[in-house]
Amino acid sequence: MKLLKERIQQDGKVKEGNILKVDSFLNHQIDVELLGEIAKEFQRRFADTGVNKILTIEASGIGIAVEVGGVFNAPVLFAKKAKTKNIAGEVYTSKVMSYTHGREFDIIVSKDFLGKDDRVLIVDDFLANGAALEGLISLVEAAGAHLCGCGIVIEKGFQPGGENLRKKGIKLESLAIVDAMDAETGVITFRE
Amino acid sequence: MKLLKERIQQDGKVKEGNILKVDSFLNHQIDVELLGEIAKEFQRRFADTGVNKILTIEASGIGIAVEVGGVFNAPVLFAKKAKTKNIAGEVYTSKVMSYTHGREFDIIVSKDFLGKDDRVLIVDDFLANGAALEGLISLVEAAGAHLCGCGIVIEKGFQPGGENLRKKGIKLESLAIVDAMDAETGVITFRE
Repeated sequence: MKLLKERIQQDGKVKEGNILKVDSFLNHQIDVELLGEIAKEFQRRFADTGVNKILTIEASGIGIAVEVGGVFNAPVLFAKKAKTKNIAGEVYTSKVMSYTHGREFDIIVSKDFLGKDDRVLIVDDFLANGAALEGLISLVEAAGAHLCGCGIVIEKGFQPGGENLRKKGIKLESLAIVDAMDAETGVITFRE
Repeated sequence: MKLLKERIQQDGKVKEGNILKVDSFLNHQIDVELLGEIAKEFQRRFADTGVNKILTIEASGIGIAVEVGGVFNAPVLFAKKAKTKNIAGEVYTSKVMSYTHGREFDIIVSKDFLGKDDRVLIVDDFLANGAALEGLISLVEAAGAHLCGCGIVIEKGFQPGGENLRKKGIKLESLAIVDAMDAETGVITFRE
């Protein structure tokens, strides 16, 4: 997606440790107009897949999911990072390894809102190791729902998450795939 | 807001401890169409206040803020609940007491995205004791920004947050004010 890549080039900041900061327009401050264009692009890429529910994970996926829900006219469901012990039976749960925070945490969705009639598009801001996305996919599978695919705003193509998911045959659409970043020069190289 | 009150009556669930569960349409699963109507109502109530930035707090405020940002054509900024020690100088920070979780936490926004040219509308899903909202207002004040007002979807009118803020002269608009709830009967009484 040209507009997005241009914006990343313009306003993204490369930091040591393969960190790409896009908090001026995507995941702290949010450019709502850009988000609308992102949602329309996902609509094009997942047209005719019969999406009727959008799933994401708190917090930075929620804004994207709400815009995508608007274009698909579908409800949004966001998985919560569990802070307390779950009550077995009421929620689907999955374990996610956070590489950023160096620990495992549980994500949950209520069984009331995910079931076998749902055709789910998962969206999120970033894909790197794929841990969060695999956790969300586990929730969809546990609910017996149909996975239409995954829509990612920025994929770190030099980390294994995207390749692993594509190998499994999952329809994964990333609007910008970063193949290399250089913290010294600030140069960001996108996959063609 | 009639549509909202009807939806709360229909799908809200009253639980012991003055808990109103609206997770089927507002803060776990999100009805995006309803959210759009909520945003339009905030637009009417804050017309002519010159809003040019929407501020909220993760996680459940984000969806509302993005819809409101759309109608005002303004960027959204969401305060983060700090998980790590803050780097002094880079962020505005405020302490918020969470009555739900029984502990205090820090909320932060980057100084890059809030400043004296901003005319801020704060939005959130719930107002009860007002701790989160007062924390957000502190961030606006610390940044020297102008506070246009606060837009709340559901105010618990039997808790002191709303009254305290109105006493201070803050323009606070709550789309549904619940004056009483009964966990046994499920009856919800709204303020006229």
